[in-house]
Amino acid sequence: MSQVQSAREVEAGKTGGKISIILSKGTIDMVYPAFFIATTAAAMGMEVHMFFTFWGLDAVRRDKVEKLKLSPVGNPSLGMPNILGVLPGMTALATMMMRKRMAEKQVPKLYDLIRQAKELGVKLHACSTTMAVIGLKESDLIPEVDDVVGATTFLQLSEGGQVLFI
Amino acid sequence: MSQVQSAREVEAGKTGGKISIILSKGTIDMVYPAFFIATTAAAMGMEVHMFFTFWGLDAVRRDKVEKLKLSPVGNPSLGMPNILGVLPGMTALATMMMRKRMAEKQVPKLYDLIRQAKELGVKLHACSTTMAVIGLKESDLIPEVDDVVGATTFLQLSEGGQVLFI
Amino acid sequence: MSQVQSAREVEAGKTGGKISIILSKGTIDMVYPAFFIATTAAAMGMEVHMFFTFWGLDAVRRDKVEKLKLSPVGNPSLGMPNILGVLPGMTALATMMMRKRMAEKQVPKLYDLIRQAKELGVKLHACSTTMAVIGLKESDLIPEVDDVVGATTFLQLSEGGQVLFI
Repeated sequence: MSQVQSAREVEAGKTGGKISIILSKGTIDMVYPAFFIATTAAAMGMEVHMFFTFWGLDAVRRDKVEKLKLSPVGNPSLGMPNILGVLPGMTALATMMMRKRMAEKQVPKLYDLIRQAKELGVKLHACSTTMAVIGLKESDLIPEVDDVVGATTFLQLSEGGQVLFI
Repeated sequence: MSQVQSAREVEAGKTGGKISIILSKGTIDMVYPAFFIATTAAAMGMEVHMFFTFWGLDAVRRDKVEKLKLSPVGNPSLGMPNILGVLPGMTALATMMMRKRMAEKQVPKLYDLIRQAKELGVKLHACSTTMAVIGLKESDLIPEVDDVVGATTFLQLSEGGQVLFI
Repeated sequence: MSQVQSAREVEAGKTGGKISIILSKGTIDMVYPAFFIATTAAAMGMEVHMFFTFWGLDAVRRDKVEKLKLSPVGNPSLGMPNILGVLPGMTALATMMMRKRMAEKQVPKLYDLIRQAKELGVKLHACSTTMAVIGLKESDLIPEVDDVVGATTFLQLSEGGQVLFI
């Protein structure tokens, strides 16, 4: 990108340099891509905002951040018959297998990935509406969360940039 | 945002002032965020388009709009073992529990949310391809739907704005 | 769009004329919308990039491209009780039913849709991280895939355009 073009984009306040991610899922296979994209974009110098809503809030809850699961049910891609997927323990097994494979490939743990994202400047926003519905307090969230905001604030933050709904 | 910048953005036809939402899921936990984002954006003065495709079409079907469900299976975030999730009645139970919690927090019913979206100027578009595959007629949709269009028209409408796939 | 405006947008490198799709799901009901949007956008003259990550990689694997499934479990929209959804064979049945309905409506097969996308100029990128975690080689992918890249490259490619996460 030429300097002139870059300057024009910064001036216009909506360069490709900003990406916002709405995370609405709480399973490993969706939370990881969200953080991979966030850290990658931040490492490239982009401004990155993440908004945790609905099940996505699990990723930043003190009691869940280390315990996210991967459900084998309803995921035919896993190649596991549904009848097996519903047996008690199969979610845990699928989760364990994925964790093991990810560890072997040196994929960082989720909390480490969150800390890395923070170091790179990624902003973490929790959805105030979801928290009210679930009955969560700010102290239930990991301290890395920057603030608890509504959809209006998030849309203002993401204005002019790319937005992903995960 | 300065007036000059704003004018430049409007002129360029791609201000952050437009957001388009492709809704492809028909469960409460995805339909609600879609409408929350839509109404919030519209209330902020943004131009908002929603495109209902695949399961998302359920949200604007006369026979389903009041009956959307929340499935506990494949949602490990719900903390319910899959073996329970598949028992007859458990989807209904999880749905009822979420409805109850949302009512307590005065979250509006879906149809009220749709009407509110319409009042705020949100445009509702149903996917013609999905309707042909399912065998739905326009009269099967709630009257709030603005039109039945193909992907080409939707991409033209969303051009230059933010697009979310939910 | 006026020629002047069009020229300005091309110059700015971020016209609505570019759309990038991150496909993270491997079920028929998510892969088809991804390719429908991609081919439609390409037919409209847009630059289109697809990035296959996590389960989405199934769509471009030699051993899976013709065998993608539709899971009835966890999809209350299908109107099938979960208890039925987990019986062996029900995923296959739901998949067969959808395939049949799509064939009747002359919806092309996935591989035909991929070839059509390629002819229209859609670029297909496989996620290198996912491939490393799963242990896939480039030769395991269909030859239509253009390259195996990391998230950084993909974000660079998608810069300034619309991005969908499916």
